[in-house]
Amino acid sequence: MNKILLLNGPNLNLLGRREPGIYGSTTLKQLEEKIVALGESNDTEVVCFQSNHEGEIIDKLHEANDIGVNGIIFNPGAFTHYSYAIRDAIAGIQVSVIEVHISNVHSRESFRHTSVIAPVVAGQIVGLGMIGYELAFHAFLERIKGRE
Amino acid sequence: MNKILLLNGPNLNLLGRREPGIYGSTTLKQLEEKIVALGESNDTEVVCFQSNHEGEIIDKLHEANDIGVNGIIFNPGAFTHYSYAIRDAIAGIQVSVIEVHISNVHSRESFRHTSVIAPVVAGQIVGLGMIGYELAFHAFLERIKGRE
Amino acid sequence: MNKILLLNGPNLNLLGRREPGIYGSTTLKQLEEKIVALGESNDTEVVCFQSNHEGEIIDKLHEANDIGVNGIIFNPGAFTHYSYAIRDAIAGIQVSVIEVHISNVHSRESFRHTSVIAPVVAGQIVGLGMIGYELAFHAFLERIKGRE
Amino acid sequence: MNKILLLNGPNLNLLGRREPGIYGSTTLKQLEEKIVALGESNDTEVVCFQSNHEGEIIDKLHEANDIGVNGIIFNPGAFTHYSYAIRDAIAGIQVSVIEVHISNVHSRESFRHTSVIAPVVAGQIVGLGMIGYELAFHAFLERIKGRE
Amino acid sequence: MNKILLLNGPNLNLLGRREPGIYGSTTLKQLEEKIVALGESNDTEVVCFQSNHEGEIIDKLHEANDIGVNGIIFNPGAFTHYSYAIRDAIAGIQVSVIEVHISNVHSRESFRHTSVIAPVVAGQIVGLGMIGYELAFHAFLERIKGRE
Amino acid sequence: MNKILLLNGPNLNLLGRREPGIYGSTTLKQLEEKIVALGESNDTEVVCFQSNHEGEIIDKLHEANDIGVNGIIFNPGAFTHYSYAIRDAIAGIQVSVIEVHISNVHSRESFRHTSVIAPVVAGQIVGLGMIGYELAFHAFLERIKGRE
Amino acid sequence: MNKILLLNGPNLNLLGRREPGIYGSTTLKQLEEKIVALGESNDTEVVCFQSNHEGEIIDKLHEANDIGVNGIIFNPGAFTHYSYAIRDAIAGIQVSVIEVHISNVHSRESFRHTSVIAPVVAGQIVGLGMIGYELAFHAFLERIKGRE
Amino acid sequence: MNKILLLNGPNLNLLGRREPGIYGSTTLKQLEEKIVALGESNDTEVVCFQSNHEGEIIDKLHEANDIGVNGIIFNPGAFTHYSYAIRDAIAGIQVSVIEVHISNVHSRESFRHTSVIAPVVAGQIVGLGMIGYELAFHAFLERIKGRE
Amino acid sequence: MNKILLLNGPNLNLLGRREPGIYGSTTLKQLEEKIVALGESNDTEVVCFQSNHEGEIIDKLHEANDIGVNGIIFNPGAFTHYSYAIRDAIAGIQVSVIEVHISNVHSRESFRHTSVIAPVVAGQIVGLGMIGYELAFHAFLERIKGRE
Amino acid sequence: MNKILLLNGPNLNLLGRREPGIYGSTTLKQLEEKIVALGESNDTEVVCFQSNHEGEIIDKLHEANDIGVNGIIFNPGAFTHYSYAIRDAIAGIQVSVIEVHISNVHSRESFRHTSVIAPVVAGQIVGLGMIGYELAFHAFLERIKGRE
Amino acid sequence: MNKILLLNGPNLNLLGRREPGIYGSTTLKQLEEKIVALGESNDTEVVCFQSNHEGEIIDKLHEANDIGVNGIIFNPGAFTHYSYAIRDAIAGIQVSVIEVHISNVHSRESFRHTSVIAPVVAGQIVGLGMIGYELAFHAFLERIKGRE
Amino acid sequence: MNKILLLNGPNLNLLGRREPGIYGSTTLKQLEEKIVALGESNDTEVVCFQSNHEGEIIDKLHEANDIGVNGIIFNPGAFTHYSYAIRDAIAGIQVSVIEVHISNVHSRESFRHTSVIAPVVAGQIVGLGMIGYELAFHAFLERIKGRE
Repeated sequence: MNKILLLNGPNLNLLGRREPGIYGSTTLKQLEEKIVALGESNDTEVVCFQSNHEGEIIDKLHEANDIGVNGIIFNPGAFTHYSYAIRDAIAGIQVSVIEVHISNVHSRESFRHTSVIAPVVAGQIVGLGMIGYELAFHAFLERIKGRE
Repeated sequence: MNKILLLNGPNLNLLGRREPGIYGSTTLKQLEEKIVALGESNDTEVVCFQSNHEGEIIDKLHEANDIGVNGIIFNPGAFTHYSYAIRDAIAGIQVSVIEVHISNVHSRESFRHTSVIAPVVAGQIVGLGMIGYELAFHAFLERIKGRE
Repeated sequence: MNKILLLNGPNLNLLGRREPGIYGSTTLKQLEEKIVALGESNDTEVVCFQSNHEGEIIDKLHEANDIGVNGIIFNPGAFTHYSYAIRDAIAGIQVSVIEVHISNVHSRESFRHTSVIAPVVAGQIVGLGMIGYELAFHAFLERIKGRE
Repeated sequence: MNKILLLNGPNLNLLGRREPGIYGSTTLKQLEEKIVALGESNDTEVVCFQSNHEGEIIDKLHEANDIGVNGIIFNPGAFTHYSYAIRDAIAGIQVSVIEVHISNVHSRESFRHTSVIAPVVAGQIVGLGMIGYELAFHAFLERIKGRE
Repeated sequence: MNKILLLNGPNLNLLGRREPGIYGSTTLKQLEEKIVALGESNDTEVVCFQSNHEGEIIDKLHEANDIGVNGIIFNPGAFTHYSYAIRDAIAGIQVSVIEVHISNVHSRESFRHTSVIAPVVAGQIVGLGMIGYELAFHAFLERIKGRE
Repeated sequence: MNKILLLNGPNLNLLGRREPGIYGSTTLKQLEEKIVALGESNDTEVVCFQSNHEGEIIDKLHEANDIGVNGIIFNPGAFTHYSYAIRDAIAGIQVSVIEVHISNVHSRESFRHTSVIAPVVAGQIVGLGMIGYELAFHAFLERIKGRE
Repeated sequence: MNKILLLNGPNLNLLGRREPGIYGSTTLKQLEEKIVALGESNDTEVVCFQSNHEGEIIDKLHEANDIGVNGIIFNPGAFTHYSYAIRDAIAGIQVSVIEVHISNVHSRESFRHTSVIAPVVAGQIVGLGMIGYELAFHAFLERIKGRE
Repeated sequence: MNKILLLNGPNLNLLGRREPGIYGSTTLKQLEEKIVALGESNDTEVVCFQSNHEGEIIDKLHEANDIGVNGIIFNPGAFTHYSYAIRDAIAGIQVSVIEVHISNVHSRESFRHTSVIAPVVAGQIVGLGMIGYELAFHAFLERIKGRE
Repeated sequence: MNKILLLNGPNLNLLGRREPGIYGSTTLKQLEEKIVALGESNDTEVVCFQSNHEGEIIDKLHEANDIGVNGIIFNPGAFTHYSYAIRDAIAGIQVSVIEVHISNVHSRESFRHTSVIAPVVAGQIVGLGMIGYELAFHAFLERIKGRE
Repeated sequence: MNKILLLNGPNLNLLGRREPGIYGSTTLKQLEEKIVALGESNDTEVVCFQSNHEGEIIDKLHEANDIGVNGIIFNPGAFTHYSYAIRDAIAGIQVSVIEVHISNVHSRESFRHTSVIAPVVAGQIVGLGMIGYELAFHAFLERIKGRE
Repeated sequence: MNKILLLNGPNLNLLGRREPGIYGSTTLKQLEEKIVALGESNDTEVVCFQSNHEGEIIDKLHEANDIGVNGIIFNPGAFTHYSYAIRDAIAGIQVSVIEVHISNVHSRESFRHTSVIAPVVAGQIVGLGMIGYELAFHAFLERIKGRE
Repeated sequence: MNKILLLNGPNLNLLGRREPGIYGSTTLKQLEEKIVALGESNDTEVVCFQSNHEGEIIDKLHEANDIGVNGIIFNPGAFTHYSYAIRDAIAGIQVSVIEVHISNVHSRESFRHTSVIAPVVAGQIVGLGMIGYELAFHAFLERIKGRE
């Protein structure tokens, strides 16, 4: 059975309550349930984790590598813009990561235009709202099927 | 019936022949057939267009607006990095655009890290190979279904 | 009889429809008719041309030089910000060019603050709406009259 | 009766004597008489003021607001490039300002390419010599007539 | 009864011992007792928290929002200069934050001149030593009294 | 008896009328009366001065030094961002200065993010509206009492 | 028989007429005849093409690749400084390109100091006037002879 | 007896497994045993600590200060490049720190060229592999012996 | 009889009292008397002027031009670093100016390293204390004697 | 008889042994013999000089001027990127210099993209290997023949 | 027998006399004797060389390569910050170089923070005083012993 | 008897022949004779030295220190802009240096605007032609007389 880690970074626990004009009204719980369900209908276990602590995210990335997940769907939140430690964690493991951003970071403040993590991920999905997470899931399914 | 424009910019006519280590071995014709087929099985007409001429791409964006397509899947090629004229064309029409890049532009030359078009598109899908186009198609389907 | 070229760059064919909050509701056709009429009442033929193609604009600038127009009223649209080829075309001909921008580009996105064409034109009129074109016409009339 | 303020900044009292290759041979007095006459034939009172003192220019902008002029034709001279205090004065009043530069500042030293005032004015006329002031006058007439 | 959170970031547990020439000789405990006492004489509960962990500070900001405090007096220490995650936490909650710095950061190393948090706080008090915390407390009292 | 100088820079004479969404509806006169009254109830004479002229502000800073005031509450307005002459005046006198900004300059245009004066003042109070002036007054009282 | 493409970019059709102080008095026709003649005496067919249209140049580069020329002598004109699309076209084909500039671009405006194309060409010849094209021809002859 | 803290930052728990081409095949456990052994033969207790959590590293630096170690051998991993909080922790304690990097950070990505910690450490050893830690140990021995 | 203007900018009235470690203990009055005396023994009238007002300095420069002085010894104080208006005044007159700085501005804060006035003066004397003014006087004498 | 100086800068004595993947396997001696032979068959004396000392290169440039050579073929090696002293030497002599680089410096490290010497040479030949020197020789022959 | 080159750059002949607060009181002679002695007790010949001439250092690096030393301990002095010629010399030879700086260059002027040589050396030892040279010696011993 | 070193850097041996429009027609020999004569009439021995070799200049600065000259008049030529080694030499000796530039470097190319040597010299004299050397001589005389 395949295994996917759904990893969310700082402040994403506020989803649905935080600046809904930007991030929409879906809560983190609803998002996680949605992706778990998607996993179930595709023979894939989806493990969910959210943290506001950079260190816990690094630990989780290492652990995902050790238990051998097939892919990591990762919204790094604001860590996107400065956490070289997370970048090194991704570069240091064998698992592929797809970076997801709910809002179009390129039409917001200039500090959001740079992702220090982007150079070491497999790909990025930006600005497509909650659907972005689903698309990332499908991309991993395709990769598992060996298509790309 | 829905209508989607699949728009490819300069040098993408070389797909399959150009730097296959970066862009893969699928040709533009195969890609277009794939997305047209995806459209057919989803009750959607997919119109395909590729050009090495910035002006023709602007004209096509205007025309897509006039005939009322439901979405534009757009790989601007190198125009991504300097064509403010295409940016203005996108900002000037009502149709949503999803920007697709086959390779992970963020792990390549620094000039590829900036997209002057990104601030005015609906979203971006980067680095996921040919699957990126399919995901963009699915994103539009979801949007048409009114989900996002 | 005097001859003036009214030259409009990319996306200006959308005038009246494109972001009317910024560009107003006058169409390109109405603008051109207005300036042609102004020419008629001032013994001046006004030739109008609009293109989304940088190459066609360069060709037209060369042609205007060859047929000997008295001045070029030019709104380069987004080419303003990167078309060094158009800059070279203007520098390479003998005809004076007045650069016109409908909106106040200095109160918009930062990329609009730089005109690569400005150093080689005779002058610039910015932010005065459609009146800017008329003022440019009058400036050429004064120049033709040898006043400045 | 309409009222227009013709405001000139530092060193413009030297007009006609200062670097005539750049600024021409018309004196400030001649310019002011010309615009006053233009006002008279257009039912408009033109008030003239020149100062080398930033503070006096700010005071005058406030006063123009208090007495309710219809528009300000303003050549800020070198204050263009650094006087955020004048910028704030313009932003803080209700009267429209048109910024005029006699020479083409974009073909001169690089410090002249930036106007800290431009983002808060109605428009800019650059490089058209003394005619620039006249065009600004006509632009205000048009605005008063409610055309733009 | 009003509630204020007094929040101190990394290395502020060393207050009184760390570089006393810069930060003075008051300890964190003394500071907290001072502000708690100030609260008691103004009918306000002051909750104190210090952490060297960015994640714990984000968690505490979320919690303060959930329990509904009236204001947060926050010295982010060195997180001031790079923690976009804390910035997002502040932007994501409804409670006002006043940013306090003991020393005048603008007369120290250049990296201290930039606060990535400043754009989303209500205000900043810089360089006034321990009094800065007290002034922030008074500012919240005034705000609670509805004055500003 | 203590003496405090309340010093306001360019355009602050417009307070209450200028961009009230940013600067509030209190007039300069009301502010000055408020701080004078605060002085009276704290055995302190408050002298008020406002000018749009940089030179007058420098002269006033020198004079304040000569007559020996106990502190200067100073809102430099837009001079904040470029007046190195005022900076030198502050550095050249023995009196402490507290810099006050009514609005949160860090959430406005980028030129407002830099204060050339900040490195030589005792402290800064930013974004707390009219209360900022009162807090500065209290900070001086505390300093006079020898507390910090 | 060998085949060389002589490719000239925007405004080079004006050669001999455009800024002769910079570009000399030889016309494009004379240059092309010279290089064709050089080809004839060296058993090499020289194909000539000039365009002001970026897209046509890209098309021609692709076509040169398809018909298998031995080398491309290319003066990109102002496209040198911004056409990443042409850069990608050169990187995407198998034919070697030598970039030629008639004038010494390094002693002119600063935007001319950067060639976005240079990193993907075989070599550059700058500032040697019309002889530069001849030298490029000889360089290809040497390469064809297998010397380098 | 002397006491040395061997402190390793984020992702160094992966040593031996992470990018061995860059970091070699020695594991963290082997490294720690090596330095502990070196300590034993030099009458020095070596305490080892590794964490992916910035806050834990700050806490440990404070603790090392409190228990009075003679020196800290510190590889900050990616925190090198942005953790001003760790920088402040080092500046705030009395113990000397030697910064060690296994690989030559100056021949890798540009973000690795800057250490925000370097200005406050005693010294740096870069690019000498695992031997770097040993050399740092010897440097502390020399310092303890009072030689430098 | 020759005439020299000794012109001092903002805060130089504080000479002898202001930061004597940097500027020495000579007062402005003593300096002016010294240079006047130097003039007397060299058949030259020395006129002295100091102001904290940029506008007054510009007026004085214009006036010096009108009355035909032989040279201006000018310490612009902090206006050195931003007064493009003074720069334009110097460029707009026929009289030569020598810029004098008492302290070595190049070993102080970085904003003092740039003089916007330097490109239009005859020369600069920096860091030689009060002697700098005397040397400037001698330089003008030499120039008057027609030597250079 | 014509005279050409073949001048090679630092590390070019290592040619053939130094990074042959970049610089090829021809030694300096072979290169010099080749160009001398080329001179012999074209009635031109070729003088060869190589040095790792900037001062010796400057001396040689002066000397070449004094003895009146017809041209200098110059590969400045790494001095290209910082030796303003060599730049001034070239600007200070009457002899033309052609700058040659064996490798394509524009596809290597970014510091190699800037030549401080380029603005004062007659032309540049880059990336064409050893043939570059021969082409430079031919360019001088053409110039001597008075063709350009 | 092993051979090590101890190479010191400009101004290091002043060691012991030059700014002893920064560089200590050991003279160059004492340092060289110390390292030679260290060599003798480790079966290694240490050759010493110091020069203020960039060219002599390059020559010495080439020579060291030719005679086959086992390693070079190199303090480049101020050449560290701009000598690309020395960088190329190091890149062009086969011998490993360890770069040593006596003082902590990262806590001094900003120009000292960049080493143009660092990317091509084996490693760097910074800020550890004279011990840095000894540590470099030991690092080479370890390398010779084949450990790294 | 006093002793002054007159030190001239690269290309100044060309004085009188090199770009006389910039540097005048006086030769180095004439300049040296002039300053020697000035020394003779002021009881001062003037030693002259010119070199195009950075290393020789550093050696001479050290030597001047050893023999105890009273001051060094130094025109560093182009070394001004990059020789940190010369800067360190000046910082490392006890003798005062006055930096002289013949032309106004601030009105020439931008690279000439920065002197890396200026922060460590006593003063600078710029743009006053050959008189600058004489003024520097007089400044040293004054210093020797103990006046400043």
